[in-house]
Amino acid sequence: MPASYETHRKQLELILEAWGMPKATAAGTAEIMAWADLHGIDTHGISMVPPYDERRLGNKLDLRAEPKIVKETPVSVLVDGAGGLGHPAGRRAMEIAIEKAKKTGIGVAAVRNSGHFGACGFYVLQAVDAGFIGMATTSASGINMAPTNGAQARLGTDPIAFAAPGKPGEPFLLDMATTTVAAGKIRNKANEGLQTPPGWLVTKDGLPSTDPHEVSKGGFMTPLGGTPEGSSHKGYGLGAMVNILSSALSGGAMVTDPTRNTRPGPIDIGHFFLAMDPGMFRDTADFQADVASFCDTLRATRPADPAKPVQVAGDPERRIAAARMKTGIPVGPNLLAKVKEIALASGADWIMEG
Amino acid sequence: MPASYETHRKQLELILEAWGMPKATAAGTAEIMAWADLHGIDTHGISMVPPYDERRLGNKLDLRAEPKIVKETPVSVLVDGAGGLGHPAGRRAMEIAIEKAKKTGIGVAAVRNSGHFGACGFYVLQAVDAGFIGMATTSASGINMAPTNGAQARLGTDPIAFAAPGKPGEPFLLDMATTTVAAGKIRNKANEGLQTPPGWLVTKDGLPSTDPHEVSKGGFMTPLGGTPEGSSHKGYGLGAMVNILSSALSGGAMVTDPTRNTRPGPIDIGHFFLAMDPGMFRDTADFQADVASFCDTLRATRPADPAKPVQVAGDPERRIAAARMKTGIPVGPNLLAKVKEIALASGADWIMEG
Repeated sequence: MPASYETHRKQLELILEAWGMPKATAAGTAEIMAWADLHGIDTHGISMVPPYDERRLGNKLDLRAEPKIVKETPVSVLVDGAGGLGHPAGRRAMEIAIEKAKKTGIGVAAVRNSGHFGACGFYVLQAVDAGFIGMATTSASGINMAPTNGAQARLGTDPIAFAAPGKPGEPFLLDMATTTVAAGKIRNKANEGLQTPPGWLVTKDGLPSTDPHEVSKGGFMTPLGGTPEGSSHKGYGLGAMVNILSSALSGGAMVTDPTRNTRPGPIDIGHFFLAMDPGMFRDTADFQADVASFCDTLRATRPADPAKPVQVAGDPERRIAAARMKTGIPVGPNLLAKVKEIALASGADWIMEG
Repeated sequence: MPASYETHRKQLELILEAWGMPKATAAGTAEIMAWADLHGIDTHGISMVPPYDERRLGNKLDLRAEPKIVKETPVSVLVDGAGGLGHPAGRRAMEIAIEKAKKTGIGVAAVRNSGHFGACGFYVLQAVDAGFIGMATTSASGINMAPTNGAQARLGTDPIAFAAPGKPGEPFLLDMATTTVAAGKIRNKANEGLQTPPGWLVTKDGLPSTDPHEVSKGGFMTPLGGTPEGSSHKGYGLGAMVNILSSALSGGAMVTDPTRNTRPGPIDIGHFFLAMDPGMFRDTADFQADVASFCDTLRATRPADPAKPVQVAGDPERRIAAARMKTGIPVGPNLLAKVKEIALASGADWIMEG
C-alpha cells in the first residue's frame, strides 16, 4: 500500500538527516521533495534519493552545507549554495526575494555553487503564497540536449517555472523543461518496446529518429519544438536563456564549461528566482480576478475530444495531488527497495512499508 | 531595386507623420518598424502598413495618441498607451524601466491600452544597449491559436523576447512567438501548393492536419510543441504566461474577454518589459564574458550537416541585417504597390521606387 504523504515526507526527512543535513534544513528539503511526488512529478522527489546518495558518496554534494548570502541590494540577493543540495538554497533565495518584493515591489535572487533543487514549481508557489508572481529557472547537471542542427549535447533539460495567483488554491503554474519531453518518457517507450513520436530525439549524428534506444547509443534529446521545421530553435533558445539567467548571472559554472562535470567537488548548479507584486501596477484583487477568469475561460475551450478537456498549467498536478493525498504516494517496488537499502546503510529509520 | 535602409525608414516615417503621428514619435516608430524589416522580420515592419491603415480608418487605432505614465514606484511604471500604436508606448516604457534599473538594479514596466508594437526584439535590445538583460512580452490582437486538446481559438501568437549582452554587437537575442510557426509560414506553404509539416496546425475540430488550407477553413494554429505528444502544453503554457504578464498585470483587456475584439475603439493590447542589471550580482564584464563564451561554444557544436552550422538566438537576424544594410531591404511588388497607394491616399510623399 502506498505510504501517506506524511509518512513519505517524514521518510525523506529521516534519510536527509542521516546524511548529515541540519534538522530544520532536512525538514524543509523533504517537504520540497515530497511536494514533487505528491503532485505526480515523480522524477524529482524520492526517485532522486539514489543519485543524491551517489553524489554525496562521490564528494559531489555536501549535505552539511548551509547557503550563504554573498551580496545584497534592496531588490536583489546573491546566494552561495556552498555545494549542497539546491533545495535549501533555492527556498531561502526565494524567501529573500519575496521579503524584498514586499518592501520594493520586486525581488530577484541568483544562486551559484548549488545542486539539484528538485521541481521548479515549488519555489514559484512560495511567491504565489505571498500574493506575488513568481519565476524560477535552474541550470541542469546532465548535458543531454543537442541544439537545433547539432550532433553534440550542449544543454540540459533547463527548466523554467512561472506562477501567478488566481482563484484561491488554483494558481496558474507552469513548470516545464525546455526539452521536448523528459528523459523518463523516452525510457518508458523503450521499456514498452514502442517507437517514440517524431521529434523526441536525434541519433548521435543529429538525425531524427523514433527509436527510443538511440539515446543509449549516443543520441540526444531535442529542444521543445522537436525538429527544425517544428521550430526547435525556440526550445533551444529558451534553454539557453535559462542558462544565462541561472548560471551567467550568478557566476555559477556555465554548462558549456568543459571542466564543469569533470572537476572534483560539487558541480556548481545555478538558479534564478523572481518575485513580483502585481500591486505595483493595479489592485491585487483585480489582477487575481483577471487571472482566475482567464484560466476559467481557457478551461471552457471546446475540446477536440470531449474525453480530454482543455486544462490550464497546474491543473493536472493539482488533480494528482488531491488523489494522492487520499490514497498515498505510489513508489515502484524496485525504487522502494533501493531507497530502503540506502536509508538503512545511512543509519536512517525505515518507516515506509516494504 | 530594394530601397536602402535609410530610404525605407524615412518612407515609414513620412507615412506615420501623414497619419497624424507627432514628428518625434513618428521617427521613433519608423525606426522600430524598419529595424524589423532590416533584420528579416518582414511580418512586423512595412507589411504592417496596410493593417495599421485599416485599423486607423476603422477607429481602432489613434495615431495622435501620446502614452501617459499612470503609476510609478522606484522599480516600476504603468503606462497607458492611449489607444495608439504600441511602438511609442513600448519604447518609452522600456526607457523608463532602464532608467529605474540604473538606479535600483531592476525596472519593470506594464503597458495597457496599447496597440501592435512590432517586433519584441527591438525593445530588449534597448536594455542590452544599457548593459542590461531585457525581457519583453506582448498580447496579440489576433486570436488564432487553439490550446492543447482544444477546437477553439483562445490565444494569439503571444511572443516573448529575452536578450543579454555578450560579445559587443553580438548579444544573445531570443524573440519568439509561442505558436509553432508564424501564420505567414502556413500561408507560404499554401501559396506553393505544399503540405505543412505535422504539428503546424489543426482543423476546426482540433484534429491534426498537414493541409495549409485548413487554416482558412476555420482551423487553428498550434502552440509550440505542435501536438500533445510533442508537448504543445508547454507552448500553450508560455502563451498563457505572456497574456498574464502583458494584460493581467497592466489591466489591459484579456484576450479571453469576449468583448475585446468586438467593442468599438482601440483593442487594448498589453505589454510587459523588464530591465535588469547583472552588476547586482557580479562584475558586469565577467557576466558578458560568460555570455559571449557560452554563445561561442554553442556555435562550435558539431553540426548534423556541415552546411547548416549551429546558430545562437540573434545570429540569423544579424546576418540578414548586415546583408540588407548593403543591398537594401526587399519588399514584394504587391505589398509595395499597396503601401504606395496608402501613402499617397494619406498625403505622404513617396520616396521609394515603384
